[in-house]
Amino acid sequence: MKLATLRTGGTTRAVRLDGDLLVDLGAPDLGALLAREDWAEHAAAVTAGDARTYPVTGADFAPVVPSPSKVVCVGLNYRNHIQEMGRDLPEHPTLFAKFADSLIGAGDDIQRPEETDAFDWEVELAVVVGRPVRRARGEEAERAIAGFTVLNDITCRDWQFRTREWLQGKMWDSSTPVGPYLVTPDELPGGVRPALDVRLTVDGEVMQSDTTGDLLFDPVDLVEYVSTVTRLNPGDLIATGTPGGVGHARTPARYLTGGELVVTEIEGIGRLENRVVAEKSA
Amino acid sequence: MKLATLRTGGTTRAVRLDGDLLVDLGAPDLGALLAREDWAEHAAAVTAGDARTYPVTGADFAPVVPSPSKVVCVGLNYRNHIQEMGRDLPEHPTLFAKFADSLIGAGDDIQRPEETDAFDWEVELAVVVGRPVRRARGEEAERAIAGFTVLNDITCRDWQFRTREWLQGKMWDSSTPVGPYLVTPDELPGGVRPALDVRLTVDGEVMQSDTTGDLLFDPVDLVEYVSTVTRLNPGDLIATGTPGGVGHARTPARYLTGGELVVTEIEGIGRLENRVVAEKSA
Repeated sequence: MKLATLRTGGTTRAVRLDGDLLVDLGAPDLGALLAREDWAEHAAAVTAGDARTYPVTGADFAPVVPSPSKVVCVGLNYRNHIQEMGRDLPEHPTLFAKFADSLIGAGDDIQRPEETDAFDWEVELAVVVGRPVRRARGEEAERAIAGFTVLNDITCRDWQFRTREWLQGKMWDSSTPVGPYLVTPDELPGGVRPALDVRLTVDGEVMQSDTTGDLLFDPVDLVEYVSTVTRLNPGDLIATGTPGGVGHARTPARYLTGGELVVTEIEGIGRLENRVVAEKSA
Repeated sequence: MKLATLRTGGTTRAVRLDGDLLVDLGAPDLGALLAREDWAEHAAAVTAGDARTYPVTGADFAPVVPSPSKVVCVGLNYRNHIQEMGRDLPEHPTLFAKFADSLIGAGDDIQRPEETDAFDWEVELAVVVGRPVRRARGEEAERAIAGFTVLNDITCRDWQFRTREWLQGKMWDSSTPVGPYLVTPDELPGGVRPALDVRLTVDGEVMQSDTTGDLLFDPVDLVEYVSTVTRLNPGDLIATGTPGGVGHARTPARYLTGGELVVTEIEGIGRLENRVVAEKSA
């Protein structure tokens, strides 16, 4: 299944992609749907004939889960990228946070704040949690993965490196597109450990291109690790890290200055298309 | 005013301290109360005669705000502590995150996970946000401060230093007492920049003792800085950092192993009393 949160009529709805249609699943967003213990059976059982539908053409997607209780992000997780940087493979994943207010929809504008001169991109495979878990191991961790989505971990590098903690470069408002779809593992080669091409382009130029098969800590490892520290709740997101090719690591460094179209895609999961615009002063 | 979130009858209620009584303010918790634009006038206007009341003796306090959208914490913010560590005063505050699932009430047990051998304390003055703000400056930042509370930023040092990002040492479930009261700035010497004694004891032995007058970045500075990056919502918490005297920096290092009573207090604001217990495996 491909599930999403659709903006419609001034509100949002949880929907399932069914050919050219988005079928209303009777919940206000995917977070509310995933909170149902039977979300998968329920989402599969609703038929286009019985429910309200919306055309997928021109659909306005909200963040795939608009208000997750946690967005946990992983740094340094693609083997080749770590090695090309001359680092040893780490024993533990590096974790940092985002808050829900950073998230935007798959077609929304990325708000570039005037306070940064180093606005950068990071294509990431993101795990969407489907069951509450703590200290999940093995099959329990696998079953906790509702599916996967695409996330662009937009980063203000200058703020990221102002201090030794990255958070202030990562938690800017309305900066982080995520979606459009949550794709369930049964639809993906590799299931809960999918091997998929990831790619990011800026105005059509390929900046990042890799495969999630190169992840050092795979999605199940990450659910096990993060859930050791804190409960994971339905709708929570784990962004699994980015491969090489970010603007900051280029020679010369290259940043988003405004006006660019950034396309972030993962094979079989989905595609984000976001224009970089100057943030309206707030 | 001193406001709190009280656990009663299987739910929670926002209350105001009135002598020996806690007066029900008609909201399920302080987060819901602070979301009202007129929260201060409303909280002041409710009288003990018109509302349900509860005795303060034996009161069971929830986290002062049970589900803030953001908990932003500051590292390295007491001048003397920075200087005794031989560091230069930083130009920018160091920020890291917690999630709401870490928070516990003023008298709750601190759950010590079996995965740590370096469980440590950190007394902190915490700002409670009372109005939605972004890029607040000067008086707007001052007015965004609903009040102050006490927070003990319990930390798994071994996990904090596993990687270069601190988050995984800071976001353990049910580890971080916060409360019991939000105290409004009008009750404090120094108002929104209070100069108050902070103190933490373990089984009666003083481990930390300092004054918030030594903060490098004061509460108003922090509201200005954090709100540059992200909107602050009513009920959000900013933990302003801890002074010297943490267990990790002692010679020899000293950690919480279980059974200790940790008392965390700030003059004029309140007192947390928490027993350290072995976390029930989950």
